[in-house]
Amino acid sequence: MPASEYEKMAAGEWYCCLDDELDGLRQQARRAVHAHNTLPPDERGAVAPALRALFAGAAPDIFIEAPFHCSYGINITLGKRVYFNAGCAILDSGRVAVGDRTMFGPGVQIYCAEHHKDAALRSAGIEIARPVAIGSDVWIGGGAIILGGVMIGDRAIVGACAVVTKDVPTGATVVGNPARQINAV
Amino acid sequence: MPASEYEKMAAGEWYCCLDDELDGLRQQARRAVHAHNTLPPDERGAVAPALRALFAGAAPDIFIEAPFHCSYGINITLGKRVYFNAGCAILDSGRVAVGDRTMFGPGVQIYCAEHHKDAALRSAGIEIARPVAIGSDVWIGGGAIILGGVMIGDRAIVGACAVVTKDVPTGATVVGNPARQINAV
Amino acid sequence: MPASEYEKMAAGEWYCCLDDELDGLRQQARRAVHAHNTLPPDERGAVAPALRALFAGAAPDIFIEAPFHCSYGINITLGKRVYFNAGCAILDSGRVAVGDRTMFGPGVQIYCAEHHKDAALRSAGIEIARPVAIGSDVWIGGGAIILGGVMIGDRAIVGACAVVTKDVPTGATVVGNPARQINAV
Repeated sequence: MPASEYEKMAAGEWYCCLDDELDGLRQQARRAVHAHNTLPPDERGAVAPALRALFAGAAPDIFIEAPFHCSYGINITLGKRVYFNAGCAILDSGRVAVGDRTMFGPGVQIYCAEHHKDAALRSAGIEIARPVAIGSDVWIGGGAIILGGVMIGDRAIVGACAVVTKDVPTGATVVGNPARQINAV
Repeated sequence: MPASEYEKMAAGEWYCCLDDELDGLRQQARRAVHAHNTLPPDERGAVAPALRALFAGAAPDIFIEAPFHCSYGINITLGKRVYFNAGCAILDSGRVAVGDRTMFGPGVQIYCAEHHKDAALRSAGIEIARPVAIGSDVWIGGGAIILGGVMIGDRAIVGACAVVTKDVPTGATVVGNPARQINAV
Repeated sequence: MPASEYEKMAAGEWYCCLDDELDGLRQQARRAVHAHNTLPPDERGAVAPALRALFAGAAPDIFIEAPFHCSYGINITLGKRVYFNAGCAILDSGRVAVGDRTMFGPGVQIYCAEHHKDAALRSAGIEIARPVAIGSDVWIGGGAIILGGVMIGDRAIVGACAVVTKDVPTGATVVGNPARQINAV
């Protein structure tokens, strides 16, 4: 039996996002995101239960400021005391793993999804998902964008509004668009 | 009879945004945007009816993730299967036309509105609106900003977080701030 | 008696954000922000009463489009006719003062908070707050980011998506990441 679009997505192969099973998974995420973003803060707590339940894994002490957005949720794993400030968005068609105590400023974006560069294939819904792995004790500055396929090492610092297109070594500080390392480690 | 501020805005002339008629149009847009952004996903559907009704034109199969923002709405025309990911904002004091199957990543911003560069006039509410035209089968990457007066050709690709300040040819790929073309077409 | 974390924050010294008093102040801000962002536009008015009440000071005729975000609110002072377009966020661990008639485009971010660059201290919650002062009749373009410690002079213009890392003189126009002055004044 040929692989489903979901299986192709999970395997890191090209897949078609115009698919009933994927539609259903995205709608499930919309419901959880909506719950998180509209609950009054004293009812929402550090993360709305529906959103926590969606994640592949999340330590008990994560904190996600509203509003937050993710496209599937089921591919996200968050370590101890991970903190997202307001307005972060994760397009988690690929796996997104975040280590312990890593902090995200406001409006940080993580984009696993990449559309096909051929316009006809792109418009037919063909895309690919690349994973993102972020270490422990990392500080991602506000407005930064992390593209699919990127690994960010422990204790790294990503400057405000940086566009991270390639791996960031352990302990490195990167800034700019595209992001470049500015410290020796 | 002298032209109203709305008529001046529509004609691409300098106008004063501190105006009762324009205030009313903006409040109408706020209501529709609020409806779209707060409705539970299963009630909202692909686009809340109030928001769809606001647009100058929109194909039946557009999809707009919440949250979305527009300042007037009445100047926006969207082709078949146009898709906006979460957090996009359109300041549509000018006409904004989007072709078929064009996709917007999260947080894309389109700014038709330009304030006056003279501080006294600017603080008196003087601004001008420039149209934006985006072709078919275009991919606008997340966090990109499109300024007023820009035309983007069919099948173009705009990189994540690019700031597009001038026209993008058909089939071109542009990246950076300000955006520069990186492919031959 | 040793200074509280709040007192250290207010004094511009390193402090620990993992603190019950600061937690309570942030939760108070979340409630006001939530009220502003979820009230229907006709009930919210130009700014929700709960959000207005939070600010250190705000002229009667300010206007804040939803959604808006601030981390404390109590450190923000806004002059006459200050206008924030949709999606602005202010991390006001430090004082944020804005003059009269200054306009913020959509998605402008002001970050007073700076985490410690040492990963162990950063993960222990050690951070510092630097004030931001913005003059009168300033235009901050959409998507711009203003970092802590920055002063922006009267009548200045900050380009869309600029990242402002140092002071901007009166009447200057700055663009880019990092922002650079492009006009003579």
